[in-house]
Amino acid sequence: MRITTVGLDADDTLWHNESIFRLTQERFRALMADVAEPGLLDAHLAAVERRNLALYGYGVKGFTLSLIETAMDLTGGEPPGRIIADILAAGREMLGHPVEPLPGVEHALAELSEAYRLVLITKGDLMHQEQKLAASGLGDLFAAVEIVSEKDARTYETVFARHGTGAAEAAMCGNSLRSDILPALQAGAWAAHVPYPLTWAHEMADAPVGHPRFAELASIGGLPGWLRAMSQT
Amino acid sequence: MRITTVGLDADDTLWHNESIFRLTQERFRALMADVAEPGLLDAHLAAVERRNLALYGYGVKGFTLSLIETAMDLTGGEPPGRIIADILAAGREMLGHPVEPLPGVEHALAELSEAYRLVLITKGDLMHQEQKLAASGLGDLFAAVEIVSEKDARTYETVFARHGTGAAEAAMCGNSLRSDILPALQAGAWAAHVPYPLTWAHEMADAPVGHPRFAELASIGGLPGWLRAMSQT
Repeated sequence: MRITTVGLDADDTLWHNESIFRLTQERFRALMADVAEPGLLDAHLAAVERRNLALYGYGVKGFTLSLIETAMDLTGGEPPGRIIADILAAGREMLGHPVEPLPGVEHALAELSEAYRLVLITKGDLMHQEQKLAASGLGDLFAAVEIVSEKDARTYETVFARHGTGAAEAAMCGNSLRSDILPALQAGAWAAHVPYPLTWAHEMADAPVGHPRFAELASIGGLPGWLRAMSQT
Repeated sequence: MRITTVGLDADDTLWHNESIFRLTQERFRALMADVAEPGLLDAHLAAVERRNLALYGYGVKGFTLSLIETAMDLTGGEPPGRIIADILAAGREMLGHPVEPLPGVEHALAELSEAYRLVLITKGDLMHQEQKLAASGLGDLFAAVEIVSEKDARTYETVFARHGTGAAEAAMCGNSLRSDILPALQAGAWAAHVPYPLTWAHEMADAPVGHPRFAELASIGGLPGWLRAMSQT
């Protein structure tokens, strides 16, 4: 078989993302320490985020608005101004956070880009994702960038048809079984899972162990070798 | 000459957008009436929005955060809780606002879709734009949707190459001279300007009067006829 195109997820596959949200959440806990104990605060924030997901989507700006709403709810609608100010500052810092590729990413992508067409396939805020790609210094290695609102089988079919030679000759690599791996396999593509230590509960799903087009890799550094091996089958 | 592809802007071309921002701004003036007089408030909000543009981009969530920041600034950092609550509610209402096509849009698009490949080309928040397109009921008339972070000549070249037969055989229609018309002409496409009564100062530019591939139309209803006439030249 032949692989011509490799799709790569961005957040938590190429660079840290979840850990930045977690750090902000820790900062929020400290900020709200006099108001709510951490367990209650986290549970309330999770409920607010879930409620807002359909309206706000994924991304830093929606998260910032959900933090403000949580602070409102837990202070009887009268949060001290410094809490609002600090949440706004935290949101701005998340948006402006330096983007560092995860270990091994630059090397692996440089190698892959010599043999395959690389396509970045990511959810989230269009402008912020483009800013992050530019800041990462990895932009030139990609033949195309697709920022999508959902990652389902149809998304992968469309993207690999548009930027490659179809899903059957494409491989997807990402940290989320639910968003990157299962729908890509369903679309007929190959898929390599590179787990990230912190995985959002919403993204959890069972690994398709034994699937002929699936691999679990300890790091993205293993991707070129796996693709080479698969090309010889 | 031949036109195969028609690009259409979304906000304020297919449906109201600016007017919804203006209504929210009026609500904000009423909310802040005890705090700042309208002229000062508007000027401060405009300055905050300008400062945040590179970080927040265009869209409702960034606007909502800028409203909160403006309220913070003008109340010495201690806004009454009801002001924050009302801003959050206004943001949510903007995101959930029903999307009504502007007069004549459905008829014109139905006619155009029989003769040309229609591509929606719009800036703004990916998820919110997709929600609006779905809510408008116009989605099925489009062969493709491109949500972009900038509208410059290169954007139009890329999009018309990807979804059509290149910019020379494409026409762009929108309400903004600066974003829809001038860069599309620069890319070699045809361009029809349909002004919207409220045009954001940032979007103002001089009309390219006398340009051979340009038309100013009173409404989108004039687009099919203009394209037919141009096809016969």
